[in-house]
Amino acid sequence: MKKYEEKSISSTPIYEGKVISLRVDEVTLPNGKTSKRELVKHPGAVAILPITDEGKIVFVEQYRKALERSLIETPAGKLEPGEEPEVTARRELEEETGYGCEKLTHIQSFATSPGFADEIIHVYVAEGLSKIENAASLDEDEFVEIIEATIEEAEEMMKSGQIFDAKTAYSVLWAKEYLQKR
Amino acid sequence: MKKYEEKSISSTPIYEGKVISLRVDEVTLPNGKTSKRELVKHPGAVAILPITDEGKIVFVEQYRKALERSLIETPAGKLEPGEEPEVTARRELEEETGYGCEKLTHIQSFATSPGFADEIIHVYVAEGLSKIENAASLDEDEFVEIIEATIEEAEEMMKSGQIFDAKTAYSVLWAKEYLQKR
Repeated sequence: MKKYEEKSISSTPIYEGKVISLRVDEVTLPNGKTSKRELVKHPGAVAILPITDEGKIVFVEQYRKALERSLIETPAGKLEPGEEPEVTARRELEEETGYGCEKLTHIQSFATSPGFADEIIHVYVAEGLSKIENAASLDEDEFVEIIEATIEEAEEMMKSGQIFDAKTAYSVLWAKEYLQKR
Repeated sequence: MKKYEEKSISSTPIYEGKVISLRVDEVTLPNGKTSKRELVKHPGAVAILPITDEGKIVFVEQYRKALERSLIETPAGKLEPGEEPEVTARRELEEETGYGCEKLTHIQSFATSPGFADEIIHVYVAEGLSKIENAASLDEDEFVEIIEATIEEAEEMMKSGQIFDAKTAYSVLWAKEYLQKR
């Protein structure tokens, strides 16, 4: 998995932030030439595809400053340092939707933007949902609204652009196949 | 689509690069408090899901410095300023695979990392493929290898982690449903 490896000759730190950091590496290419790579580091994240006993998907709507609009997405959240993704998934599900789940199953992990970032999202399906009394609350800079939708409604939201991010687009396709079999 | 809007109070440019730029905004939250948002700007990209007449998918393997490994992905590339995504899609398909296509159909657009970046990928399916003589060549810092795979082989590559990025994971699920109907 190192085909065409690009070795770093130098690495220049540009920024250390709360969520991401940025550095620029000069690399040697397979043909011996050099190039620059702008590299964003991110702690990684989980996304949860919560499916109710009735076969509805639980989404959250939130504002995304990077896109200057709100999106309808699967619940998700960043990994804390050293945290197991499954722990993050249960926490974020509770915080963002108020649901706990009996069954949490990893379905896929993927890099979101391999051209410039190392962010990896671990996607879980959550089933056997039930509302938690006095559920943990959101971070103080998070504001989300819960939306429960059938798969047909979710597909409409993808067509209309209300659902507009990679992890959620993936999750809707996955849920469609899964619910046909369940 | 502006629910829970976060208005910028100030915006600090951090870096202007070849591919991305970074700025940090201080924003007003819906509860009146303030927070910081680290925001990566990216020109946007296309991904092409090329399907041969025999129902094979054409992937490319390339090294991804951000992840320090090579990945098997759908062909893809950044939008040039002012370029229509369909033009980018035909160009990247030719450069990365040597294929031209009779039919190019937009299937979905999505943000890859809405938590910190504005990158949007437009995904197209390309059909009616045929090799172009003297095809346009890759950028001088690009090195890719072409891999043609059946949908079953692609699903195995997802399980094994050789396919490991969001646009390709989405495309494989989409292709599976599509090929069952085609």
